[in-house]
Amino acid sequence: MKYPSGIKKVVTNNSNKATINYGNRGMNLESDLNITNEYYRDHDIAYIYKKPTPIKIGTVDYKIMKITEAYFESPSTTDYNGLFNGKYIDFEAKETNNKTLFPIRNIHKHQLTHLENIYKHQGICFIIVRFNKLNETYLLFAKDLFIFINNNDTSSIPLDYFKTHGYLLEENYHPRINYLKVLEKYGGA
Amino acid sequence: MKYPSGIKKVVTNNSNKATINYGNRGMNLESDLNITNEYYRDHDIAYIYKKPTPIKIGTVDYKIMKITEAYFESPSTTDYNGLFNGKYIDFEAKETNNKTLFPIRNIHKHQLTHLENIYKHQGICFIIVRFNKLNETYLLFAKDLFIFINNNDTSSIPLDYFKTHGYLLEENYHPRINYLKVLEKYGGA
Repeated sequence: MKYPSGIKKVVTNNSNKATINYGNRGMNLESDLNITNEYYRDHDIAYIYKKPTPIKIGTVDYKIMKITEAYFESPSTTDYNGLFNGKYIDFEAKETNNKTLFPIRNIHKHQLTHLENIYKHQGICFIIVRFNKLNETYLLFAKDLFIFINNNDTSSIPLDYFKTHGYLLEENYHPRINYLKVLEKYGGA
Repeated sequence: MKYPSGIKKVVTNNSNKATINYGNRGMNLESDLNITNEYYRDHDIAYIYKKPTPIKIGTVDYKIMKITEAYFESPSTTDYNGLFNGKYIDFEAKETNNKTLFPIRNIHKHQLTHLENIYKHQGICFIIVRFNKLNETYLLFAKDLFIFINNNDTSSIPLDYFKTHGYLLEENYHPRINYLKVLEKYGGA
């Protein structure tokens, strides 16, 4: 696995706790999850992949196999799924710049329906939400997501709900975001 | 679910047995599997999807969100995965015009590796192969695929191996190809 060279540990003081930052802190959640999943595969721990972005292909120049016209489509399922410990794993990952709330509209309606179906059929499913400005990433099981949605009229989940019902994911060197640890401990995997 | 209109049952004699053909016999295996999986979802039986084709995006006109340059990439995993009865399901589907053999090279090396990993980690995995000229479609569990590969020096699997170690999938109106029946009976799902 290739990491960008020159990564250094930098300890910064972030309000009342010390956080370890790694060189390419600028990486987004998707990149972090991709290298985490790559780590899991390289170490034969789990086989979880990000699905390719769905694209509607318009025109193809078949002589050079080049697509010259295509459009993005909205995904009908979540972005990530795979296999861990014989269990089906399924999740969606989102970032927000909001410091206190996660707006539920960030997850498409059909993605919520998908998570509901997966939950009903005994898949292990959850969302991973990163609060960019706080540098905090949480895992929230779909069960707790639906409990919130079914019991609240608001269109956003407060950060506090993630703190009390979700799990803060530590960031490390490798695996970058060890979310499988949470599944092993609390998620039946 | 929408079916093309004007579908009629047509009974044809195919060597020594009667086969029921449906109007759009011209449909390929991928279409058949897509409407089968749609049937499974519509009836809350299983949540199995074809992954989008992986595409490397070159240039995008962001004003109109149009992709103007992109290229096909070869898939690193199988085409289909999902959840059935709480089990992780993973498979690749291929057609061949060969009447007696299935050339193994039709499945990419990294797809074979993927199936091997899934098998090792207790996922339910298999290939579905359609012999176009014979109008026969077989399900072969990955376990039996690897037994063949590990014990034979040939680069093709004879049709007979599918007949003896695989399962002939009947084609019906809906679900079109009920491959989950084989998993329930023989595949531990």
